[in-house]
Amino acid sequence: MQQGRDPFGDPTRPALDPVESVERLAELGAYGVTFHDDDLIPFGSADSERDAHIKRFRAALDRAGLRVPMATTNLFTHPVFKDGAFTANDRDVRRYALRKTIRNIDLAAELGADTYVVWGGREGAESGAAKDVRVALDRLKEAFDLLGDYVLSRGYPLRFAVEPKPNEPRGDILLPTVGHALAFIGCLAHPELVGVNPEVGHEQMAGLNFPHGIAQALWSGKLFHIDLNGQGGMKFDQDLRFGAGDLRQAFWLVDLLESAGYQGPRHFDFKPARTEDMSGVWAAAAACMHNYLVLRDKAAAFRADPAVQEALRASRLDQLALPTLARGEGLTGLLADRRAFEDFDVTAAASRGMAFEQLDQLAWDHLVGTR
Amino acid sequence: MQQGRDPFGDPTRPALDPVESVERLAELGAYGVTFHDDDLIPFGSADSERDAHIKRFRAALDRAGLRVPMATTNLFTHPVFKDGAFTANDRDVRRYALRKTIRNIDLAAELGADTYVVWGGREGAESGAAKDVRVALDRLKEAFDLLGDYVLSRGYPLRFAVEPKPNEPRGDILLPTVGHALAFIGCLAHPELVGVNPEVGHEQMAGLNFPHGIAQALWSGKLFHIDLNGQGGMKFDQDLRFGAGDLRQAFWLVDLLESAGYQGPRHFDFKPARTEDMSGVWAAAAACMHNYLVLRDKAAAFRADPAVQEALRASRLDQLALPTLARGEGLTGLLADRRAFEDFDVTAAASRGMAFEQLDQLAWDHLVGTR
Amino acid sequence: MQQGRDPFGDPTRPALDPVESVERLAELGAYGVTFHDDDLIPFGSADSERDAHIKRFRAALDRAGLRVPMATTNLFTHPVFKDGAFTANDRDVRRYALRKTIRNIDLAAELGADTYVVWGGREGAESGAAKDVRVALDRLKEAFDLLGDYVLSRGYPLRFAVEPKPNEPRGDILLPTVGHALAFIGCLAHPELVGVNPEVGHEQMAGLNFPHGIAQALWSGKLFHIDLNGQGGMKFDQDLRFGAGDLRQAFWLVDLLESAGYQGPRHFDFKPARTEDMSGVWAAAAACMHNYLVLRDKAAAFRADPAVQEALRASRLDQLALPTLARGEGLTGLLADRRAFEDFDVTAAASRGMAFEQLDQLAWDHLVGTR
Amino acid sequence: MQQGRDPFGDPTRPALDPVESVERLAELGAYGVTFHDDDLIPFGSADSERDAHIKRFRAALDRAGLRVPMATTNLFTHPVFKDGAFTANDRDVRRYALRKTIRNIDLAAELGADTYVVWGGREGAESGAAKDVRVALDRLKEAFDLLGDYVLSRGYPLRFAVEPKPNEPRGDILLPTVGHALAFIGCLAHPELVGVNPEVGHEQMAGLNFPHGIAQALWSGKLFHIDLNGQGGMKFDQDLRFGAGDLRQAFWLVDLLESAGYQGPRHFDFKPARTEDMSGVWAAAAACMHNYLVLRDKAAAFRADPAVQEALRASRLDQLALPTLARGEGLTGLLADRRAFEDFDVTAAASRGMAFEQLDQLAWDHLVGTR
Repeated sequence: MQQGRDPFGDPTRPALDPVESVERLAELGAYGVTFHDDDLIPFGSADSERDAHIKRFRAALDRAGLRVPMATTNLFTHPVFKDGAFTANDRDVRRYALRKTIRNIDLAAELGADTYVVWGGREGAESGAAKDVRVALDRLKEAFDLLGDYVLSRGYPLRFAVEPKPNEPRGDILLPTVGHALAFIGCLAHPELVGVNPEVGHEQMAGLNFPHGIAQALWSGKLFHIDLNGQGGMKFDQDLRFGAGDLRQAFWLVDLLESAGYQGPRHFDFKPARTEDMSGVWAAAAACMHNYLVLRDKAAAFRADPAVQEALRASRLDQLALPTLARGEGLTGLLADRRAFEDFDVTAAASRGMAFEQLDQLAWDHLVGTR
Repeated sequence: MQQGRDPFGDPTRPALDPVESVERLAELGAYGVTFHDDDLIPFGSADSERDAHIKRFRAALDRAGLRVPMATTNLFTHPVFKDGAFTANDRDVRRYALRKTIRNIDLAAELGADTYVVWGGREGAESGAAKDVRVALDRLKEAFDLLGDYVLSRGYPLRFAVEPKPNEPRGDILLPTVGHALAFIGCLAHPELVGVNPEVGHEQMAGLNFPHGIAQALWSGKLFHIDLNGQGGMKFDQDLRFGAGDLRQAFWLVDLLESAGYQGPRHFDFKPARTEDMSGVWAAAAACMHNYLVLRDKAAAFRADPAVQEALRASRLDQLALPTLARGEGLTGLLADRRAFEDFDVTAAASRGMAFEQLDQLAWDHLVGTR
Repeated sequence: MQQGRDPFGDPTRPALDPVESVERLAELGAYGVTFHDDDLIPFGSADSERDAHIKRFRAALDRAGLRVPMATTNLFTHPVFKDGAFTANDRDVRRYALRKTIRNIDLAAELGADTYVVWGGREGAESGAAKDVRVALDRLKEAFDLLGDYVLSRGYPLRFAVEPKPNEPRGDILLPTVGHALAFIGCLAHPELVGVNPEVGHEQMAGLNFPHGIAQALWSGKLFHIDLNGQGGMKFDQDLRFGAGDLRQAFWLVDLLESAGYQGPRHFDFKPARTEDMSGVWAAAAACMHNYLVLRDKAAAFRADPAVQEALRASRLDQLALPTLARGEGLTGLLADRRAFEDFDVTAAASRGMAFEQLDQLAWDHLVGTR
Repeated sequence: MQQGRDPFGDPTRPALDPVESVERLAELGAYGVTFHDDDLIPFGSADSERDAHIKRFRAALDRAGLRVPMATTNLFTHPVFKDGAFTANDRDVRRYALRKTIRNIDLAAELGADTYVVWGGREGAESGAAKDVRVALDRLKEAFDLLGDYVLSRGYPLRFAVEPKPNEPRGDILLPTVGHALAFIGCLAHPELVGVNPEVGHEQMAGLNFPHGIAQALWSGKLFHIDLNGQGGMKFDQDLRFGAGDLRQAFWLVDLLESAGYQGPRHFDFKPARTEDMSGVWAAAAACMHNYLVLRDKAAAFRADPAVQEALRASRLDQLALPTLARGEGLTGLLADRRAFEDFDVTAAASRGMAFEQLDQLAWDHLVGTR
């Protein structure tokens, strides 16, 4: 995709050599670089070629002082995965997918990655009987349990991050949202090894509020990685640079990640528009980082503003932070409290305004720099 | 809504007395009737009035031979819940909501309900800072844990069913999809007491495949209840009669519920269009049941058709049902199997067609009755 | 709606007296006030009551120094319009709707309005056979032609503005987008009398780019009025304050209106959230105006920035402004120009980057105030 | 696409020779075959190669007895069109696009086509300043006016059909819906030469009701061609076989085309799923035709059913067909008719049910074959 190919158009740019990527990202101030196995080592390379590719990549990393925090397997480009990888109806394809993944996990561990992203973009269907979803979830669990066993048996310090997406390239993809992925993880043999890698545009393709989904992932202790980009609403996966698309959600996302103390990588997973040459590609890459830092500063200023703190109290966010039951009160206490029900002045309570418009307008002015 | 009120229009029909509902539903062959507390007993009724309402309703149930399989609390109509109930920023509103719910749980148990639906339609926000979602999830968990304690302490044979919805009436609602609800349930103190009550239109408002979501709920053992209706795509919540809206998903849904042996209620939660008088209301109610039965018969015929069974094999659904690893093979076996990777003929595997078009066309012909 | 009623909730605020509205809007610096007939004069008022309401409203306008630039008829709230007004299947309802409209046109003219908005929110259907759309368009054309005749016969200086919307309250509404409305207008007897009144959220409910639709309306000479508000993507009609929702589209919209020299009203058609008391209502109203002015200044600074002007040239916007054929060249010239085809270096042309990322990032920095 | 390439995957099938297509389509009973210039003659072919390709294709048509009712230019695949063709910012690209189109119009005329489809899939933008939409519409009009001049000057019996699409491959495409295209056509120098070619999935990608859009196109006399396929809601362009996706809209569409006496081609523009081999491709092609015919028969039976005719009267479709004003009544008559307003019993009129649920359920039973 780096080459600007799309469903209706041929590539507009030459392929980018992974080594050149490393060099350019280092210049832009990136902290690390991530890879799909097939981007680094062309699909079907002989073992000797594979070793040469790896050696050359390591040397580039060393020169540039970059690390590899995350790696992943390409289980979607080759026609063999047309009906999925871990949930392909064909059992031999599933076995092949597992072996391809394990092989790349070894490389990821060798290169020092601590997160292994699994995007099941081909695990899905276009029609009703083509996939028995309950059985497919059995197969998906089998795969994750096995990969967990493998990582544990090798002692790799790797954790998995599931990347949800509702559709595209399949008509419907399994684990379509952060919620579905979190629920699935809870059913695995090694849930502690698996978290999520949400992508801004993927949740927005289902019209969902991205910061809300991230908040639930954080609340569940499962935000292992994040893919930052932009999306212009419910349509094909656009992978715009971070900050393009829904700017207000981008602001609240950065506010959340920073105030929650998220320690994982901020990974920019965008696809430079097909209209751009390489100068546009690198301008977009630089803009992703710039935009994150701008929003981070704005979020910090918003939280530090005394008027905002007052507005948060006016909207009773402080009360939300208090448990609903008093310490030690218990059910009995609640049931005995006549002020809670029998003597509660519903009409008076209903008439209290929430002051959310004032609060949100303060945020708006911080975002556009008029406060 | 029964009266045909909508955001731009006044009611077009008189209010329906709950006792008349019971009688008419019995005539239509319904198995049971469900209720919101405020529909049965007007909000703010004195205790004596409340008792009279309940007594009259019980008598009607007895006469009609209907039971009450499910009940729920209205935590959304009154202005006091404008910012939510269990996650309202105002602590006193949260306490009131818990008490209102507990009061109605007692009634539900008394009337013999075994499922208690919780739709948190007001638990959400329109703007970013107005709700700290992580903190709100703490409050929501607190509420469910408390209600679980209550039901256990009373020995009620009640289970809770969370009804997810992405938006409307709030701009974004917490637990927006079946996936998010399942994930949340896994974090509760009494997860075994809580399942989901998905509604067709709610998932489709996020563009999600409803049968896929139901399959994951079934796979998780959490489909406690289901709300059947119709929806015309990503727009406001239409609550069309079952069978209207996405007909193909309706077919696959019924196929799934029936083949999975789902034992819970098939609850039709539709809102008769505002254009209809009472004869239209009852025609739509009868059509919901008729349409379910028609689709049930079609799904059974589809599964029994030898040509379909052959097509399912041609699409290798039988292989999907086999574990990916042989019994006792383990990781070691997989890693040692050269046919799985080194000697796997990727090109040959990639060239196998999946025969999904033929399979789906068989389903199409069954659905429209041309097979 | 001003009272905070929604499909699942009762009003949270008292009704606002039209006279008080006039006073408050004047304090906020508004230029005019608009009205629905039924807001000013309760539906079904006797003629004498009607006159008193009008007199009182006029007096308030005079005191406040506000004018009435636009008026409209409520053809959607009362149950009689449940199947539409100008396209209701019932002929007597259509006749009543015309008379109700004509009566209010007289008042609008008397109060000095020059624009009459027609929102056909009930002209639509929920199911396929319920409305023969071609016949309904005949009826809609009949209505507009008649109203045009009326206005011409009275010599009123009024123009009509059709307000498109894709759905809600009907499952599908006729003339669902700006495009459909423009096309319809072209088929009328008096097309010069009719333009469009697009609303931000309505086009965004169909996932359309609002500034693009406005550009086509302007290009067609048909932007007679505009409703400014905010919307959070494809869901129910939110009517957020202007600036909330899609901030980047809001910026491009203001840039377009200002650079196109749009002379019509900037009408803020938002519904204050149900969570708010009256202080929130007025804060939101003030914010609409503030946000427009902030964006207007930013758009002006963007256009005046020499770096932006250079970036626009780098993206060849200057070339887009040139006709594709040279003056006097004609088809013959184009066909004879070998550089246009036979000798055109396709590969070289294809390799030119468009520099859109750099240009859009300049806009981003202007918007958030970092440039 | 015929080869099963998608944004995340390589081709899964070999390229299909146009001559083989002709033969297979003839076997399936098709009436004609359509082409993109680049599918028939690879982009950049020398003139001698071009002639050979054409000759071979003509021979195949003659052997198979198929005609070419429609042709079109590929103005989207090659990188030179990455920013558009007729509205590319680069003037030389626009000139090249016109010449490429004219060249293929000559071929289309030679092969006997009477419709020339223009899909402006690359005419659009991903960001706000990248395209001045008003200026781009000037360029688009310039192109259509010129092509109209060309066709008239040559005396070709060709008409143009604009194919709207909201997005993909561009973030937003100009003329996003049938409505926008109809409005644009009204502004052309030769509007009589230009109509629309709506595609099922394209309108549904904007959540619009496809039969409603087709009805407006028919009403405007502008339905010159139609692309029949299926789409699963608001997501990427799926191009499913006809009948897949929204089955109820497919039924109403066929009902409309048949009852309106539409005389143009029923063109199936689907992309066989990437999972399928050639047998799946041809099964899907055959199913498109089968499904259309099945729905045609069902629509005819629905319209012929006396119970349906009665239900249509109960829903007052007969009244919708009557003009709102009596013949010769005029405005004066309406204004003088006290029954229309002063004496109109609003309450009684409001209480009449529309009987739409009964009507729609009859359609449902016809569709699934239970009536």
